[in-house]
Amino acid sequence: MGDVRVLEVKQSVFAENDRRAAALRERLKASGLYLLNLMSSPGSGKTTTLARTIEALGERLRIGVMEADIDSDVDARAMDALGVRAIQLHTGGMCHLDADMTAQGLEGLEPGGLDLAILENIGNLVCPAEFDTGAVKNAMILSVPEGDDKPLKYPLMFQVSDVVLINKIDVLPYFDFDLEACEERIHMRNPKAKVFPICATTGEGIDAWAAWLEAEVRAWQTE
Amino acid sequence: MGDVRVLEVKQSVFAENDRRAAALRERLKASGLYLLNLMSSPGSGKTTTLARTIEALGERLRIGVMEADIDSDVDARAMDALGVRAIQLHTGGMCHLDADMTAQGLEGLEPGGLDLAILENIGNLVCPAEFDTGAVKNAMILSVPEGDDKPLKYPLMFQVSDVVLINKIDVLPYFDFDLEACEERIHMRNPKAKVFPICATTGEGIDAWAAWLEAEVRAWQTE
Repeated sequence: MGDVRVLEVKQSVFAENDRRAAALRERLKASGLYLLNLMSSPGSGKTTTLARTIEALGERLRIGVMEADIDSDVDARAMDALGVRAIQLHTGGMCHLDADMTAQGLEGLEPGGLDLAILENIGNLVCPAEFDTGAVKNAMILSVPEGDDKPLKYPLMFQVSDVVLINKIDVLPYFDFDLEACEERIHMRNPKAKVFPICATTGEGIDAWAAWLEAEVRAWQTE
Repeated sequence: MGDVRVLEVKQSVFAENDRRAAALRERLKASGLYLLNLMSSPGSGKTTTLARTIEALGERLRIGVMEADIDSDVDARAMDALGVRAIQLHTGGMCHLDADMTAQGLEGLEPGGLDLAILENIGNLVCPAEFDTGAVKNAMILSVPEGDDKPLKYPLMFQVSDVVLINKIDVLPYFDFDLEACEERIHMRNPKAKVFPICATTGEGIDAWAAWLEAEVRAWQTE
């Protein structure tokens, strides 16, 4: 008896995933395809935000969507109805996508000719943050009803997110949600994170977010 | 637009894991070490059940314990206090262990001389069921307060479990839990599953479970 040994068993799994993610990003760069990994809790408004983003950019960029879900195809049908190329990825109970699964999904999407592929990751603030999918950037949606303390409770999710959309700002008057404090907490986790307050149902704030995303795609394709 | 394509992205991940799990089981067989994968929801009594099991078998089998947890070492300390070889495995946010992580954990446990290694998996009824850890058998604990409908709600967990311990039977009078119906539902998922009603805090039913486990280990080492 004495000190208990602690082993970090995740390391080699992550190292292998990191290699695959880097390789996928290289292939994306070579083909001029920008992959965005979109994460959030369930119910934060990912699908509605995606629909608004497609409305804003659909005539300027060729967009494809991969909807990851444990077992339904509701979200991919919604995307299909918007006229974008869409595929549903079933993870069969797994709570995240890794780089290999993302690469399989992209292949299934047949991304030839696309400028932007958006991966709607599994609704979960823990597991998806652990795995580099190979995306160019990570975006996450935090909705007002979830609370302004989420960056304190899910540090890694905010640390790995390049951009945070604070959604459902139309209900700010009805919740004890301090937008300024929330932005400070986000920047405590990632000082470089871009923050866009939006309301996906009314479209408020979508233009600024869409402009940022379009600039990102153009830079990826030309720089 | 039209039919949305659905891609099962988990398949290659699982195929690779299955190969590694089979390879780990071969190594276990060669060395005469029995690995038990113990799964359950959080709070079902895994650690107390483990302690009782070690009390029942600790003088008859050489036992080691791997306590998987997202980031604490409370459970490994409890095992260490019982005098068994114990190691804490940190998964850093991952909600399951796969065969590679389990193999790393076993190496860290330094299992030379052990008859039985028990992996206390992450407290979760979904993800751990998806991944073959390489264990000889899967055990799961369902506690009475969780409800007798769990085999209906988590089919895969019960399908992959070779043995189900129904724990906290001392509180059966206070819950609407139909033991007979629960056993039927378990057997609907896996007709061969062994079911042992137990109460880890009082020790009730532990002897029958421990006898089953000891017979399993002896058979693995000699057959």
